[in-house]
Amino acid sequence: MYKFGTFAVKFSSGFVCSSFENCNMAARVICSLPYEQISNEMANLDVKTRLGANEGKPQFVLKTPKGTRDYNPKQMAIREKVFNTIINSFKRHGAETIDTPVFELKETLTGKYGEDSKLIYDLKDQGGELLSMRYDLTVPFARYLAMNKITNIKRYHIAKVYRRDNPAMTRGRYREFYQCDFDVAGQYDAMIPDAECLKIIHEILSELQLGEFLIKVNDRRILDGMFEVCGVPADKFRTICSTVDKMDKMAWVDVKNEMVAEKGLAPEAADKIGEYVQLNGNSELIDRLLEDDKLSANKVALEGLKDMKQLFVYLKLFGVEEKIVFDLSLARGLDYYTGVIYEAVLVQTQADRETKQNDSSESVGVGSVAGGGRYDDLVGMFDPKGRKVPCVGFSVGIERIFSIMEQIVEASDQKVRTTETQVFVATAQKHLLEERMKLLAELWRSGIKAEIMYKKNPKLLNQLQYCEEAGIPLVAIIGEQELKDGVVKLRVVSTRDEINVARANLTEEIAKRTCQS
Amino acid sequence: MYKFGTFAVKFSSGFVCSSFENCNMAARVICSLPYEQISNEMANLDVKTRLGANEGKPQFVLKTPKGTRDYNPKQMAIREKVFNTIINSFKRHGAETIDTPVFELKETLTGKYGEDSKLIYDLKDQGGELLSMRYDLTVPFARYLAMNKITNIKRYHIAKVYRRDNPAMTRGRYREFYQCDFDVAGQYDAMIPDAECLKIIHEILSELQLGEFLIKVNDRRILDGMFEVCGVPADKFRTICSTVDKMDKMAWVDVKNEMVAEKGLAPEAADKIGEYVQLNGNSELIDRLLEDDKLSANKVALEGLKDMKQLFVYLKLFGVEEKIVFDLSLARGLDYYTGVIYEAVLVQTQADRETKQNDSSESVGVGSVAGGGRYDDLVGMFDPKGRKVPCVGFSVGIERIFSIMEQIVEASDQKVRTTETQVFVATAQKHLLEERMKLLAELWRSGIKAEIMYKKNPKLLNQLQYCEEAGIPLVAIIGEQELKDGVVKLRVVSTRDEINVARANLTEEIAKRTCQS
Repeated sequence: MYKFGTFAVKFSSGFVCSSFENCNMAARVICSLPYEQISNEMANLDVKTRLGANEGKPQFVLKTPKGTRDYNPKQMAIREKVFNTIINSFKRHGAETIDTPVFELKETLTGKYGEDSKLIYDLKDQGGELLSMRYDLTVPFARYLAMNKITNIKRYHIAKVYRRDNPAMTRGRYREFYQCDFDVAGQYDAMIPDAECLKIIHEILSELQLGEFLIKVNDRRILDGMFEVCGVPADKFRTICSTVDKMDKMAWVDVKNEMVAEKGLAPEAADKIGEYVQLNGNSELIDRLLEDDKLSANKVALEGLKDMKQLFVYLKLFGVEEKIVFDLSLARGLDYYTGVIYEAVLVQTQADRETKQNDSSESVGVGSVAGGGRYDDLVGMFDPKGRKVPCVGFSVGIERIFSIMEQIVEASDQKVRTTETQVFVATAQKHLLEERMKLLAELWRSGIKAEIMYKKNPKLLNQLQYCEEAGIPLVAIIGEQELKDGVVKLRVVSTRDEINVARANLTEEIAKRTCQS
Repeated sequence: MYKFGTFAVKFSSGFVCSSFENCNMAARVICSLPYEQISNEMANLDVKTRLGANEGKPQFVLKTPKGTRDYNPKQMAIREKVFNTIINSFKRHGAETIDTPVFELKETLTGKYGEDSKLIYDLKDQGGELLSMRYDLTVPFARYLAMNKITNIKRYHIAKVYRRDNPAMTRGRYREFYQCDFDVAGQYDAMIPDAECLKIIHEILSELQLGEFLIKVNDRRILDGMFEVCGVPADKFRTICSTVDKMDKMAWVDVKNEMVAEKGLAPEAADKIGEYVQLNGNSELIDRLLEDDKLSANKVALEGLKDMKQLFVYLKLFGVEEKIVFDLSLARGLDYYTGVIYEAVLVQTQADRETKQNDSSESVGVGSVAGGGRYDDLVGMFDPKGRKVPCVGFSVGIERIFSIMEQIVEASDQKVRTTETQVFVATAQKHLLEERMKLLAELWRSGIKAEIMYKKNPKLLNQLQYCEEAGIPLVAIIGEQELKDGVVKLRVVSTRDEINVARANLTEEIAKRTCQS
């Protein structure tokens, strides 16, 4: 069984956090473990509740649906921090945001996902329209553009999507998960918005401090040109493309075998592909391929290579070219890409490095954390007249990032606050509930975040203990004497220092001592 | 046909906004009109797309599912403002947040909503668990507490819920809509968290500046005691309760008729109820009822009345008692309430008052905007051992609030910004794309929100026009001369003033001129 607390990782994340000492174990495990373990946890939970059910209560299973999870307050605090970093970056680049319904007409999704269509959740036919849960945010975006005849927009969209994946087979994947999408729609000069997308991915991954990353880029046109010059029949482009996509997980010999044995490609063609797809580099590689007689004689490949060269010029101007690798093996699964494609991978995180020493199979840290590309034809599929709106964008794989952030938090010894309460109003004496409520209302009116204990006569120790546990920095203590003197005793929880503050100055003093972002 | 632009309403909302001159008409109509009109819009849309489909493209309907809508960037800006106000208030009161999946096991929802269960969306049985879309956030909250054995929490949850309501019958209601819930779970002294809930509703409605509001309160125990002393048989309490709930929409004579003719209550019993439920007032009414021999002799009613008296003491301490009305006709639909219940209603909004002059049937402004109460038994329904966790909370009816905010924005002549871009990097000369990109990257690195046009050689006029439309306050203009001199020409869009700023000082100058929250 996988154990928490086996990490001894330190991160310079600048994030105030702690081990989850108050949090429910089952919920924690569900959120950051691969599926086998989640299933085990759920099975255990089932047994427990069913056992309980024998004691006279109706029998039911107390769990969330397979592949889904609750977020507890500490997980929400982490989620909020990650979202804020991402949204700030999107806004820094001038993006607006939209929202679409969580389900679409079934026919809106039909024919957009190829083989993956079997993973779409359908709603029950309850005598109305046939509906399906959205599978990604890109198809609803294209539907939105076509429906509203929008030809220019730079938008982000952060929302949950749904895939009936077999969670035991795809590690670290949920059936309900967030996507953070950024897309630019519009007819613009080549590679300018494409370069900005890569810049934003670079910005987000740098700011989240997850560890070393690389962004691989390629172009569907270069792939298609390459297939053509290698002698792949046109009707095999897509299927060979999806085999190439496995090169990050399989050795070339196995990839070649799949091409030849399973997909019926001529071995010579596969060997030629092999020479290309093992290449990766930067703008020098582009120059070398531009001098490759066969490839540069192919019109589509040449277009792709010229644009790729232009892209690298822009990436250098944006100061991000060092982390970008032109990788001819990058293919990406989705059918709708038409030009540049990219994928950001974590090379190795700190958490990952440490974890591997204990259990090399359990890593969630390494792998793809963002991906995207250009899809110039998708909106046209929705437009009644087939009008095209060129688009480029990407999606951040936020669940994996949450998992890594949770590991970082788990490993650090700082406290995650789940509230923003600045001051707790307390008393050591009895019969002062009304006075506490009066002071509380004064603080709220001044915009101070404040709480009391919902008891008539709570013990001072309990009140102070609550503040320590919740990370509340200040306590405003009142008693008969303070009320008579028109003061409040302000206690700093961390140092236990206490000073008397005139009631009239209390708000200002609290605000000064708890300046918040 | 309902027309926009018929309002001439001014609001002191402090909200920067404008008419939606760039926004798609269909999308606007969908978001702020009652259902009849939405259906018409959708029907029109269908006809259009089906017509388009005849021109050689496959026939499909370009729309969102019935009862759902997209949010465009301007609507999202309004939504963000409303959510921020609400979340700030929740945080001011020390609330944490959680999230739960959008669907639950079907059996989790079974038996919680009485007759309304027929409105639950089920997912198709695709060979796994039977799932249903969540109908509210309260039942998932109770499931979360029981599953994680949590006995104390103060949490908010903002998320979409799903109801297969007939949109033509329930005006202004969507099938997918947001709820903003705040709840306190835990065993505390009577009425303290209950009073805080009312304080928070008061805070939110005051800060949103929607118009005059009142918060009606009552207690299920007072209602039950009243039914008992009026001679209602115990098995008719719930059904008579739901008839009482209609008193805000029906005259007493019709309410009485329903009780007697439809529900078989003795006319004398109905008359006795009639005497009570037409009462409303404040703490004096409570005193009067405490002196009512019959009611105060009823143990349950007496408990309710004593707590109500205590509640009003606390509400006065919190400074909100003026807007609270003790109303014996308030019953609330849901079965799970066990104590105090409350509902906030807008008495009449500004928008409403003006609208009525034109078309009295189209008001979306008046009605319930928040409601809640105490439900001490719901968590126990999920606990295998039936352990109770007392809870009190409320839900803000955010869709109605969006509609009102949209009317306010529509009626005002200020601009709603959908981006936060501080500066646009422009040029009047050709061949300066790379220089624009370099400056842009400098600004991004300093955290400045900045954009360029994605064109190699855009016209200056187009660049300036874009800034005016998007509400971008500053333009950083570069040309050969500026580059040579190491300066940037900073133009203020609103005044058209231009000054030269040394490139080294540019970031600071922009930050100073666009200080953002």
